[in-house]
Amino acid sequence: MKPNVKIIDCTIRDGGLVNNWDFSIEFVQDLYNGLNDAGVEYMEIGYKNSPALLNSTEPNPWRFLDDDFLKQVIPEKKTTKLSALVDIGRVDPNDILPREESILDMIRVACYVREVDKGLELVEMFHNLGYETSLNIMALSSVPEQQLIEAFDMVRESSVDVVYIVDSFGSLDPRDVMHQVKKFSELIPNKTLGIHTHNNLQLAFANTLTAMRNGVTYLDSSIYGMGRAAGNCHTELLVGYIPKTTYELKPLLHVIEKHMLTMREKWEWGYIIPYMVSGILNEHPRVAMAYRNSDERDQFVNFYDKVTTPEASHSPMPK
Amino acid sequence: MKPNVKIIDCTIRDGGLVNNWDFSIEFVQDLYNGLNDAGVEYMEIGYKNSPALLNSTEPNPWRFLDDDFLKQVIPEKKTTKLSALVDIGRVDPNDILPREESILDMIRVACYVREVDKGLELVEMFHNLGYETSLNIMALSSVPEQQLIEAFDMVRESSVDVVYIVDSFGSLDPRDVMHQVKKFSELIPNKTLGIHTHNNLQLAFANTLTAMRNGVTYLDSSIYGMGRAAGNCHTELLVGYIPKTTYELKPLLHVIEKHMLTMREKWEWGYIIPYMVSGILNEHPRVAMAYRNSDERDQFVNFYDKVTTPEASHSPMPK
Repeated sequence: MKPNVKIIDCTIRDGGLVNNWDFSIEFVQDLYNGLNDAGVEYMEIGYKNSPALLNSTEPNPWRFLDDDFLKQVIPEKKTTKLSALVDIGRVDPNDILPREESILDMIRVACYVREVDKGLELVEMFHNLGYETSLNIMALSSVPEQQLIEAFDMVRESSVDVVYIVDSFGSLDPRDVMHQVKKFSELIPNKTLGIHTHNNLQLAFANTLTAMRNGVTYLDSSIYGMGRAAGNCHTELLVGYIPKTTYELKPLLHVIEKHMLTMREKWEWGYIIPYMVSGILNEHPRVAMAYRNSDERDQFVNFYDKVTTPEASHSPMPK
Repeated sequence: MKPNVKIIDCTIRDGGLVNNWDFSIEFVQDLYNGLNDAGVEYMEIGYKNSPALLNSTEPNPWRFLDDDFLKQVIPEKKTTKLSALVDIGRVDPNDILPREESILDMIRVACYVREVDKGLELVEMFHNLGYETSLNIMALSSVPEQQLIEAFDMVRESSVDVVYIVDSFGSLDPRDVMHQVKKFSELIPNKTLGIHTHNNLQLAFANTLTAMRNGVTYLDSSIYGMGRAAGNCHTELLVGYIPKTTYELKPLLHVIEKHMLTMREKWEWGYIIPYMVSGILNEHPRVAMAYRNSDERDQFVNFYDKVTTPEASHSPMPK
């Protein structure tokens, strides 16, 4: 097992997609302290997108991270590092301080494979400002191989530190992950690899373990799995299971006990049938998420018919 | 992928450990019809133990299966076969009809490795009565290798059809499963293999897939995962994911929609922190189950302390 594995807890960022980032400052502080005590290496504390570029007028501190605000939330930085995610076309370069003036350590860039050039432009900028960087290529399960090979010609020459395999649709299984890790390792042997999973098929933890055992270093997760739709690999499973002497499960159990049970009652994520179906179909969960917000939310047969009839312009059952 | 894979849905048997077999006849009939329409090959419809041998005076038709009763429940047998599980020392041989007079097709014998001789005696008897048979060796994750090798000398010479890898504590991961399958295949090459998983670490589906891809034929599961403690591999995941032309997901979605959501509100199974902890510790879930029935049920830190302090006479964290 790789001893230098690093966990990035994405609860605030990916979980924010569940509750529109309705996290109390107390929760974020408890989570930071819990992750730190548990030995988790990174906490992704939100998106660093620009409200102007998203036409947003409502305040949303974890979606539009601000360094001054963050320094109030975490006045005393401990061992756990902080990261933020940005999207192509949604981040204003003028918002980003040089790393020595920021509380953030890492900036991660999410992009689709067709935008890798734009993604790497941002990476270059953040790298030059002193940040650790990653490129998170989304929707990997539906990327044609040739497109990935071309994108990787650029990635290989870039200054990006970590390249992520992102299973946006939660449709990969351990065998698929092994295949992707092998491909990434061959095409960009000079880059450290990461994995970000979704739990539509209850395979997020297995996929993350498989990635780790095949040489992937950065493992994304969220506490109690809180992330969009079916959620992510559970941070407490990684910390409890991976034999790294610095990991301690108990501080995470404390956060779960104090916060996550009530949060799960208030907001919905996890293994839910429409998300399972979209995972099997290798599709974005947005149709399923809309369905879960409708009056028909528990009519699973109806949902299945909707997304599998040809006129719905969804792809047919892949296997 | 193995085309001759067979699913055994254990909802009534293993799920009965959750609700003391409080299943309505309507539910059992709907499940049988749903499994049949979904192409599931077997339904384990309960235990065929003897009430006298368990000192039980309460009627419990799915725990103490009776052929006359079963024929009323399922007056018209369809394609899906029926199985029952028996425990060593709890089954009265006089209760078992010859197969041609019974509605059951398969009788499975659960035993610990030290009782394999007694298990095989029962198997021999059921085999001679005409049934398909399996031997389900429980608590595999804590069986010393040498004990298994000796037990398999007997198994190899027996008439048992299927030998199961049973992850009673939900503590195996896909790599462990691969190792066990390899060992079983080498030691008893003349036997068909099966796998029965528990979902403590959210690895039940991944473990079952891994087993299948390494040559295991019989896959146990239960609908919506309903089984003791953390539950089992979900039948709907197997049927939705395995590319076998006879499998249809929709009939199972119908059963889930009609029954499982309300049943899950009434009874508890699935990913719950104390079960996760007992999975990591490779222990029987009974301590965690008792804790979930106490007032302290959501005090996860306290539970963790209880089961990891040396005086609790539990094994320490294994990794």
